[in-house]
Amino acid sequence: MEPAVHKSWRRVFHNLHRAFIIPKRNSSGWADHAAASPHSSHVKSTLLVSRLYQPSNLRDMGLDSQVAGEMSCKSQRLMQQAGLIHPSNPGCYYYLPTAVRSMEKLIRVIDQEMQGIGGQKLDMPSLCSADLWKASERWDLMGKELFRLKDRHGTDYCLGPTHEEAVTTLVAHQATLSYRQLPLLLYQITRKFRDEPKPKFGLLRGREFYMKDMYSFDVSEEAAHQTYESVCQAYTRLFARLGLRCVQVQADTGNIGGTLSHEFQLPADIGEDRLLVCGNCSFSANVETLSSDKTDCPRCSTGSLVESKGIEVGHTFYLGKKYSHVFEATFSSAQNKLTTAEMGCYGLGVTRILAAAIEVMSTEEEIRWPGLIAPYQVCVLPPKKGSKVDEASVLAEELVQTLGEALPCLRGEVVLDDRTQMSIGKRLKDACRLGYPYIVVVGQGALEETPKFEVICQQTGETMFLSKDGVLDLLGKVETL
Amino acid sequence: MEPAVHKSWRRVFHNLHRAFIIPKRNSSGWADHAAASPHSSHVKSTLLVSRLYQPSNLRDMGLDSQVAGEMSCKSQRLMQQAGLIHPSNPGCYYYLPTAVRSMEKLIRVIDQEMQGIGGQKLDMPSLCSADLWKASERWDLMGKELFRLKDRHGTDYCLGPTHEEAVTTLVAHQATLSYRQLPLLLYQITRKFRDEPKPKFGLLRGREFYMKDMYSFDVSEEAAHQTYESVCQAYTRLFARLGLRCVQVQADTGNIGGTLSHEFQLPADIGEDRLLVCGNCSFSANVETLSSDKTDCPRCSTGSLVESKGIEVGHTFYLGKKYSHVFEATFSSAQNKLTTAEMGCYGLGVTRILAAAIEVMSTEEEIRWPGLIAPYQVCVLPPKKGSKVDEASVLAEELVQTLGEALPCLRGEVVLDDRTQMSIGKRLKDACRLGYPYIVVVGQGALEETPKFEVICQQTGETMFLSKDGVLDLLGKVETL
Repeated sequence: MEPAVHKSWRRVFHNLHRAFIIPKRNSSGWADHAAASPHSSHVKSTLLVSRLYQPSNLRDMGLDSQVAGEMSCKSQRLMQQAGLIHPSNPGCYYYLPTAVRSMEKLIRVIDQEMQGIGGQKLDMPSLCSADLWKASERWDLMGKELFRLKDRHGTDYCLGPTHEEAVTTLVAHQATLSYRQLPLLLYQITRKFRDEPKPKFGLLRGREFYMKDMYSFDVSEEAAHQTYESVCQAYTRLFARLGLRCVQVQADTGNIGGTLSHEFQLPADIGEDRLLVCGNCSFSANVETLSSDKTDCPRCSTGSLVESKGIEVGHTFYLGKKYSHVFEATFSSAQNKLTTAEMGCYGLGVTRILAAAIEVMSTEEEIRWPGLIAPYQVCVLPPKKGSKVDEASVLAEELVQTLGEALPCLRGEVVLDDRTQMSIGKRLKDACRLGYPYIVVVGQGALEETPKFEVICQQTGETMFLSKDGVLDLLGKVETL
Repeated sequence: MEPAVHKSWRRVFHNLHRAFIIPKRNSSGWADHAAASPHSSHVKSTLLVSRLYQPSNLRDMGLDSQVAGEMSCKSQRLMQQAGLIHPSNPGCYYYLPTAVRSMEKLIRVIDQEMQGIGGQKLDMPSLCSADLWKASERWDLMGKELFRLKDRHGTDYCLGPTHEEAVTTLVAHQATLSYRQLPLLLYQITRKFRDEPKPKFGLLRGREFYMKDMYSFDVSEEAAHQTYESVCQAYTRLFARLGLRCVQVQADTGNIGGTLSHEFQLPADIGEDRLLVCGNCSFSANVETLSSDKTDCPRCSTGSLVESKGIEVGHTFYLGKKYSHVFEATFSSAQNKLTTAEMGCYGLGVTRILAAAIEVMSTEEEIRWPGLIAPYQVCVLPPKKGSKVDEASVLAEELVQTLGEALPCLRGEVVLDDRTQMSIGKRLKDACRLGYPYIVVVGQGALEETPKFEVICQQTGETMFLSKDGVLDLLGKVETL
């Protein structure tokens, strides 16, 4: 029925277990929670791994989850295995519930950083009229990368891969901006479309993806450069908060246009971009921008350039008046003269950042997340049913309860792996693969006079044996959004 | 350049003022905030009306903001005038920053209610393969309502108006579900596409819009009916929380299929649906489902049916095996037999709820919001510059500061109308039109020995004169998300 779908997925989801927040139905219909407090914003029930919509059986999964005809990579394989994504059409993926949790957190961090520099969030249509794209001459320039369609009246549209035309028209039709009102920074986080000739690497190069695109309007070239700089700084802060090493490199402006451009690259072997980084100064550039045989640094002239590969996760462009001229986006200057605005545009690949982070942080077998955007922060493992330490089960449930009540930052962030028909070892392996930042094993130690819990910090690799208070202390420091 | 754009908009945005959270640039580049605390999730600067991306000059706006060739209505006019939306192509709108704030809140309420009954959020591609839609026979059935396109390889796609095919295929490819894992409820809140023959009424009948669509998988018809009922209850709770009167009516199943269906209708004069409501019992139905000359209630037979009009904001369908049969979405029963799942699907028009709420709650001149999803909760008006009570200005700024610090629920929810070149009266009129639930006027009374603030509760129409503590008490009770 669906040609691009994988039979291997059937295997992956063999013995699939589900989790959601609630409800074992009781005789009266739905679980108590739903009736209890419709106004409560926090779900009180325990999150159970057995009810999470993700494969429970990670150990038995085949490792060959390659999409038919597409090149695969580590993050794609790990994300499919863990039930984060599921392939649909070529270059298109279902984002499954665990991935959606992570993506919503990532979007919150991006919102904070964009609003922190004055960005205001809007939302522009995906259907973009051909007339707009013809005005900017990109209707022809974009060639086959543009998904095109006609409506029932035969009018031409494309599916927006980026929105310079749309946002500039919007601002142009709100006339008589004053210079006092600039800079104006508008951004959106929406689904974008690009008919890639060869979609590959899962979310790293898809045909339908989420992007944050921001557009700035300024009074002068100097002011526009200041805005440009502040956006670059916000990007740098963003990647620092995610714990990702990111290089800002001089880049080509491509078909977006403009005269100044930088890429934000995460160094990675599978990266499709070739970077030249100076060993001596801070200079770095995409190979595209340099004559290819260059080995001396053009800035410090003493250093030599070393090549590495990178995944482009962000891109900034100083556009000047390229679009504002065409669409007449003007403002009234201090001299009360109508003046064309200076523009910039700034992209972040939202779904690409998610996959790239997993690509650079994970091992071949185990997902590692930037802590801030891990889908869940903590997984608690009670002992196996019928084992010698079975009676510690109740302590595990109590711990989950206490964490939820005592630590507001962990509300909705703690899951209990209730698949107690499986050994602790097997479940621990699953938890490691899924990459919960903290795993708490409730075993033998929990039955001692002063109960001890085994806490594994996956980010650092440390294992600690802590009292309940110790666990609360440690987990109380976890940064969440 | 853009045919569907209105010259009247230019007028609307004459003397446009902007607001964002920050930055007057200082000499070192950007405002202190940005540098201060990149990790802070709360912006500390005061929100200034002069910097909000919305028209400042509501009084002078023409009232004829009708889209070329489209039928208009009150909510559309008010939303365009207030800078909540801006028309793009026919049936497509820019959602401007103030509307995005409201929509994000609405989405949070929907998330709470859907997750409260066990819904798990996912995100499915917009590009849907023709093969899937042909399998369900809807490729032909949908006719011109479906936006269709080909990719660079000539493969046929449509832009998903709804995702029964996509979600059923997803679940089918995760084989060997156990009956213990059901009910499974998956939902998404994404942009949908429908090539309406006559888009009209702004967000009420567009071609590109946001919808919440949930899909349920159950072991039996009985269980599916229980799930159906729990979703209907969640919808009822949702509209109750928004303070919207909503009628659940028996409905036609249309091209979605299935045997049981209800619409959730907001009674409104401009509603496109004709409802028959019994004056005696709880029976109500869409006219489509009854023989048109019916006037006696089919349930109680003593009451007579009264006709009213409604805006459809939600729709529920019991689907049975219509899709699960086609795409082979099966589970393993208690008798260990592969059995086809019983399905339901449940839609909420997200952007439509936003517009419909404004339609039914607003006056002809002033927007009224469901309090929970108002873009901002409070607007503080300092006195006019140079007026006799000018010195009260500092008290207004202090009040905004105090509200932000003392009331976590109001963080980011209080704006200061700093356009002090305008009289209080004019700004008050703007604030009333934009529909802030609470307006605080800082005037003469603030300079008395015990400063008094004038608080206007727009939802109730009450005006109170309160001390600072009184204001804090009152506003501390505001429910936010």
